[in-house]
Amino acid sequence: MNYPNGKIYKKTAASDHEKKKTKTVQYGKRGMTLEEEINQSNQFYLERDIAVIHKKPTPIQVVKVDYPKRSAAVIREAYYRQSSTTDFNGVYKGFYLDFEAKETKNKQSFPLKNFHEHQIFHMDKCQKQGGIAFVLICFSIFNRVFLLESEYLSMFWNNQKKAGSRKSIPLSFIEENGYEIQYGFQPSLHYLGAVDQIIKNKK
Amino acid sequence: MNYPNGKIYKKTAASDHEKKKTKTVQYGKRGMTLEEEINQSNQFYLERDIAVIHKKPTPIQVVKVDYPKRSAAVIREAYYRQSSTTDFNGVYKGFYLDFEAKETKNKQSFPLKNFHEHQIFHMDKCQKQGGIAFVLICFSIFNRVFLLESEYLSMFWNNQKKAGSRKSIPLSFIEENGYEIQYGFQPSLHYLGAVDQIIKNKK
Repeated sequence: MNYPNGKIYKKTAASDHEKKKTKTVQYGKRGMTLEEEINQSNQFYLERDIAVIHKKPTPIQVVKVDYPKRSAAVIREAYYRQSSTTDFNGVYKGFYLDFEAKETKNKQSFPLKNFHEHQIFHMDKCQKQGGIAFVLICFSIFNRVFLLESEYLSMFWNNQKKAGSRKSIPLSFIEENGYEIQYGFQPSLHYLGAVDQIIKNKK
Repeated sequence: MNYPNGKIYKKTAASDHEKKKTKTVQYGKRGMTLEEEINQSNQFYLERDIAVIHKKPTPIQVVKVDYPKRSAAVIREAYYRQSSTTDFNGVYKGFYLDFEAKETKNKQSFPLKNFHEHQIFHMDKCQKQGGIAFVLICFSIFNRVFLLESEYLSMFWNNQKKAGSRKSIPLSFIEENGYEIQYGFQPSLHYLGAVDQIIKNKK
């Protein structure tokens, strides 16, 4: 298995190749959202038996359904509900993975208001059970994506209630404590490379 | 932690206590479906930090959404989609769990037509990644629930294409190779007891 551009560069600035790409394709990495890129990478991992990771469907409360003759049921009234977990989970090398993906247009820091408290609690609980929980954070203006383990997120989350505390995670902190993920060809976002580092540190 | 009635009796008939309950509450285990019982047990596990296991939302394809002023978005046209995975997954003692829950009114065997091929493939893939994949099978007439590891299910699934092969899994096979789960009070269906057995056998 070979990931030509999928290598993980931790704590370094974007490579020349990356800078060039950022310049020519300025708006949102070849037109894909972070979520689409993760889905595509997950498909790649799945087809090659590397990992089984799926996005969970959006929870919807169905109120009214029509059952027309000779055709599929049509939902006529339904509402979006808030999920009690994160968006993605699955299994990789025997490890349970659980994560959320978020984008920001900020340049300096990642605002905590992008998260819900129950997501933080959920990730904490997954970690306690021996799972690997993290967030994939995209600074869309720079086209930079980081993996940050959930314990750091929890730390900032719990601190924000204290007087005078930050309501965001500085990019510099993420650069220092997270893993930067380079865009590649296949998969477009090889975040499991960063997970390999986490697994290595666990042993 | 104490599970008064949550013990796992493998390869034994229902206990006297169980038989009595079956007699007095004949229709569907205190009126709950298998799925509701699993959800309730998962809630119990979650609150006590025993495991983090959730049912995935039903995937729905949204076609038309209204955005009324000053109130929540209303989905006006949507369709049920087929899930590409199983219904439940999560993490327990560091292990990734993945499973599907099914009920039958049959007395002798469990019909394979209750499963979709992609569910079998999905469970196989989870097993390959070191996860624990299984089905919870309820014979609703007898009020008996079994945990059967997905490798047995795959075996029957792959065999059924051969001429003259069974299209169902005999109850006797499930009794012999699965784990029977007794109904209890808290949680109502302590299926993690059977998972403990599987983990023990892995070591």
